[in-house]
Amino acid sequence: MTKIKLAQTDTRAPKKLQKEQVKKELLHLKAELEELQNLMFAESRHSLLIVIQGMDASGKDGAVKNVFESVNPMGCRVIAFKQPTALELKHDFLWRIHQNVPEKGMIHIFNRSHYEDITIQRVHRMIDKKTLQQRFDHINNFERLLVQSGTVVLKFYLHISKEKQLERLQERLSNPEKMWKHNDGDMKEREFWNDYMDAYEDAFEYCSKASKWYIVPSDQNWYKEYYIAKKTVEALRGLGMKYPSLNANMQPGL
Amino acid sequence: MTKIKLAQTDTRAPKKLQKEQVKKELLHLKAELEELQNLMFAESRHSLLIVIQGMDASGKDGAVKNVFESVNPMGCRVIAFKQPTALELKHDFLWRIHQNVPEKGMIHIFNRSHYEDITIQRVHRMIDKKTLQQRFDHINNFERLLVQSGTVVLKFYLHISKEKQLERLQERLSNPEKMWKHNDGDMKEREFWNDYMDAYEDAFEYCSKASKWYIVPSDQNWYKEYYIAKKTVEALRGLGMKYPSLNANMQPGL
Repeated sequence: MTKIKLAQTDTRAPKKLQKEQVKKELLHLKAELEELQNLMFAESRHSLLIVIQGMDASGKDGAVKNVFESVNPMGCRVIAFKQPTALELKHDFLWRIHQNVPEKGMIHIFNRSHYEDITIQRVHRMIDKKTLQQRFDHINNFERLLVQSGTVVLKFYLHISKEKQLERLQERLSNPEKMWKHNDGDMKEREFWNDYMDAYEDAFEYCSKASKWYIVPSDQNWYKEYYIAKKTVEALRGLGMKYPSLNANMQPGL
Repeated sequence: MTKIKLAQTDTRAPKKLQKEQVKKELLHLKAELEELQNLMFAESRHSLLIVIQGMDASGKDGAVKNVFESVNPMGCRVIAFKQPTALELKHDFLWRIHQNVPEKGMIHIFNRSHYEDITIQRVHRMIDKKTLQQRFDHINNFERLLVQSGTVVLKFYLHISKEKQLERLQERLSNPEKMWKHNDGDMKEREFWNDYMDAYEDAFEYCSKASKWYIVPSDQNWYKEYYIAKKTVEALRGLGMKYPSLNANMQPGL
């Protein structure tokens, strides 16, 4: 595999695509996702873990809402990982992550994840090189444990351009519905853009052994949502799930 | 490393040892353990995970009580893993284990552990060969994560003879203080003795990459307790812990 260079990777939809057509297709995918989730819940043999990463304002929250809003919340849980608590910091970095993996039948969506521990922590030199290398291995091992235990792991990096980020951060200063998302620190964090790109490129290169990364062109929300829905539906379709027969739920001898 | 053959490994203390002398030494070790635990708690840089495994009636409960009774319970927690719950079975086998690892400053003692998942589950053919091999790897990876995150992992197998087990199981039928430990299934489980020995020998061979196993001769409780206390104290001594200075707790500028 050649190393992904984010600066040379599209942040926009392929030109040939028609926005209206894609939005219609998204509706079909969301309907199918709703059915597949119900089936997964009923069968209770697999689980689905979706990891969403991306720079500030790359549209992580919107992706969660607009792709998964049709899914029965009983079978779907979103976990937004914030700065670790004091207790979390007193454990290995995967401790809080592992607690939140989906049980059989469930979809869990990680809005940020263990990948913060090899991106932001690296960019701000909170970990040394040796620890970083060890974490690459730990992440692969951890994801392999999940995959071999029946969890489908899909990892999406929401890829936006630096210009699009600026536009969206500025919108948070003027749009009353978005002001709550404004954070003084985001503009400062933007100065580390290239360091973040390096960190993500390494994450893709070194942490794809057990489950692959999808780089989602995310400057346009309609394409980002379509892309994630499509990959998710395809992965679930591929499991060949079936509703359990009545026999499976009947008491023997009755 | 040559493979450990349990049938050829002592279950009794070395002949030259004097029981009374060893018991005196145990008192000193317990006093030192109490101090070392206090120091570990104060420093809060390391943690200690003690894994205790062994056949029925090998003296796991007694080891916990008699070695660690002097330690401040604020800094020490015992987790007895029973048959997995329905929720636990819907996750990978390390999910419940990982939740219970010690935070920095703490001692956790696992009375039974993830090693049940490669012994009892193997003996009763609840997992296939491929899963068993995968679990060996998962366990090594998991323990490596803990060790690299500052946890000392000590694993003790309480080694008793088949005759000693019979004697103790029979005592549970006649001694009113031990009857609560009687379990009709234990006599039946005894029939699988050789299978268990095979399973443990493989566990020692394949799951010693990140932390080693200690085979504790356990027919005599006094020696078992001394052995565990000694290895534990030695491991903690080796950390070179120090009480934090006053500076570490003073507010800057005050």
